[in-house]
Amino acid sequence: MGSHQEREENGGAAAEGQEISAAGSIHGFESLHRLLEANLKPPIFQEVSRLLLGLNCGRPLQRISLPMAATTLSEAHNFDLQAFCFHADAEYLRQPQIVRVGLIQNSIALPTTAHIADQKNALMQKVKPMIDAAGASDVNILCLQEAWMMPFAFCTREKKWCEFAEPVNGESTQFLQKLARKYNMVIVNPILERDVNHGETIWNTAIVIGNHGNIIGIHRKNHIPRVGDFNESTYYMEGNTGHPVFETAYGKIAINICYGRHHPLNWLAFGLNGAEIVFNPSATVGELSEPMWPIEARNAAIANSYFVGSINRVGTEIFPNAFTSGDGKPEHSDFGHFYGSSHFSAPDASCTPSLSRYRDGLMVSDMDLNLCRQLKDKWGFRMTARYELYAEMLSKYLKPDFTPQVIVDPMLQKRK
Amino acid sequence: MGSHQEREENGGAAAEGQEISAAGSIHGFESLHRLLEANLKPPIFQEVSRLLLGLNCGRPLQRISLPMAATTLSEAHNFDLQAFCFHADAEYLRQPQIVRVGLIQNSIALPTTAHIADQKNALMQKVKPMIDAAGASDVNILCLQEAWMMPFAFCTREKKWCEFAEPVNGESTQFLQKLARKYNMVIVNPILERDVNHGETIWNTAIVIGNHGNIIGIHRKNHIPRVGDFNESTYYMEGNTGHPVFETAYGKIAINICYGRHHPLNWLAFGLNGAEIVFNPSATVGELSEPMWPIEARNAAIANSYFVGSINRVGTEIFPNAFTSGDGKPEHSDFGHFYGSSHFSAPDASCTPSLSRYRDGLMVSDMDLNLCRQLKDKWGFRMTARYELYAEMLSKYLKPDFTPQVIVDPMLQKRK
Repeated sequence: MGSHQEREENGGAAAEGQEISAAGSIHGFESLHRLLEANLKPPIFQEVSRLLLGLNCGRPLQRISLPMAATTLSEAHNFDLQAFCFHADAEYLRQPQIVRVGLIQNSIALPTTAHIADQKNALMQKVKPMIDAAGASDVNILCLQEAWMMPFAFCTREKKWCEFAEPVNGESTQFLQKLARKYNMVIVNPILERDVNHGETIWNTAIVIGNHGNIIGIHRKNHIPRVGDFNESTYYMEGNTGHPVFETAYGKIAINICYGRHHPLNWLAFGLNGAEIVFNPSATVGELSEPMWPIEARNAAIANSYFVGSINRVGTEIFPNAFTSGDGKPEHSDFGHFYGSSHFSAPDASCTPSLSRYRDGLMVSDMDLNLCRQLKDKWGFRMTARYELYAEMLSKYLKPDFTPQVIVDPMLQKRK
Repeated sequence: MGSHQEREENGGAAAEGQEISAAGSIHGFESLHRLLEANLKPPIFQEVSRLLLGLNCGRPLQRISLPMAATTLSEAHNFDLQAFCFHADAEYLRQPQIVRVGLIQNSIALPTTAHIADQKNALMQKVKPMIDAAGASDVNILCLQEAWMMPFAFCTREKKWCEFAEPVNGESTQFLQKLARKYNMVIVNPILERDVNHGETIWNTAIVIGNHGNIIGIHRKNHIPRVGDFNESTYYMEGNTGHPVFETAYGKIAINICYGRHHPLNWLAFGLNGAEIVFNPSATVGELSEPMWPIEARNAAIANSYFVGSINRVGTEIFPNAFTSGDGKPEHSDFGHFYGSSHFSAPDASCTPSLSRYRDGLMVSDMDLNLCRQLKDKWGFRMTARYELYAEMLSKYLKPDFTPQVIVDPMLQKRK
């Protein structure tokens, strides 16, 4: 009942073969950017692209080419591979601080009914070619998706999935430490953590592994969602690690895990601590959050004058036992479609196109970290922020007897 | 050298007649939405539109039809007229709280060399048909653009433009008070204010006029830009009115004036004080801010669970004396093109298409204010915000000896 459209490859983007159903809706396109590229005349696509990607400074979006070792791996293992470049102006006193950063998104490797050790092992084998491709591309800093070493089982509320949790120096960290050393690469490892020194407590944690394979430190997710299936408060509580910025060999990085991206103050705190790149490893599905996805990370990059790397897992994960979602609908066995769409945002309000909505992928971008201070100097957001007003406002708001500043129309009061 | 494309009218949107230059760039389209509508097949446009406008809850974007009195005025005075509708779910205990809200964007009416009284008078005559159209459409709350009663002369740094300033109960307020009474409409009046009771101080102020024509109160712009031509600190200082929310006959509203939209804490404070609709009357040009324009307001609506009405003036304003912009470029006589593009954002992450980038316009939208609390209940951002962390963080940050929370890679420290 549908017509299949064949399009030519255009530039570095894969061709689109989207389906138009009889009802007129469209499915199966890999990304908004590629859908537009396949369906607009080049000059119109260029203008639309300029507006959507925020390419306003006369700098066109620049793709970079990666070594054949990387593209070969992407073809052999069918993962999406995209690479871009953000520029900054030349300065008198500072050399460019160009860092190559990577983001990995992936689906799970085995059914959720498989042995937990097998599932985890298969996941490591699945992401390894993408890490190898990042290594072959001389990526300096790489971040994986939230709880990449397990299915996103929190929707089931079944405690058996706690078995996936591992200590900070557990098997996934050890697996990545070897690769960090091999490729001289900083790797951010977001896991389900078991805090063995604090009564076996479970946390949602990102471990920062230095380019020598050492563990630099950890950050625990600050804000925990309680939204239908997307309710993780069954498994772990709000993090107790503040808003650390990790000074690595390649730049100052921080991690805002998943739901923390809905909290502008969480983004702000990493900025006040000096972050140059903030990663947002996530797990989120289309029905819930797709309209917010391109907005929140870009806003954070603009407001805080840093780069943001957004990562979301891909695919639909089926669980053995059906569960309900607190929305009155019948029981079901999956959380929904994780729509991938990992991408970078820059402090000058520009962003890259997104990785596939369906396939595993590695997104690479070069970024000159000098752009962060250049944007601070240009826009002066830190200088004009009046933090004293807001420190006072928040202190007042926290008191149970807080009275909002409301001016009531006197005409309305008369009627009341 | 260019080819002119004629397109058919499609739905409620005006046809596009954009120019594609020999160089392949494109100019003159009224809005991104209309450019896409004119150039994509309907099912693809529908999907792109769903993604870009955040229509993810199975609710298509709904246009509403306005009375002929309004459309006749729009044709007679050549202003863009668009009208949409945001829905909320039905509730057991509350009736829908549907409010019709309007935004007006306009260019100046006379050259900046005309007598100041004539310029102001001509501006009032220019916006009057749009206010009449809003009145004919039963708009409940209407907001005009920042300093609508003058050209945006701050780029010149010439103090003579202070003559445009007027007291809170000055001529533009009196003009709008009559129309507020006539149409039983709340009107927000953003002006350049002269504070006669405080030594003739100048402020950037929004006056809220109640639907009985009474002045409910004022808000003064909290954050003042210092960016090239967009440096208003020559004329006025940071506002001293806090973050008031005005409880009107039709809902609780607040005003985040222009550059305040770059400050997530400013948006937050209006939210903590209970705003249901926040207006962002602005004056901003393409080179500077167009990539940020669709991002910041939507992010604020999402993060704070309220509606946002964004307004930007249109056109290019030429001043009698050339000025420089602090960017090393030669002197010039205009600030750039104000790109209009006024629109609404909703707490569920959806938004309307934008008004024209070139023409005056009136944007109307119905919105059920129940959606604000529904989104608070759904996402729980207030509940999960951990404000105590941030009150403490900001207090520490304000101290001169603040030390950022930085964890340095020990391998890096060794090398240092």
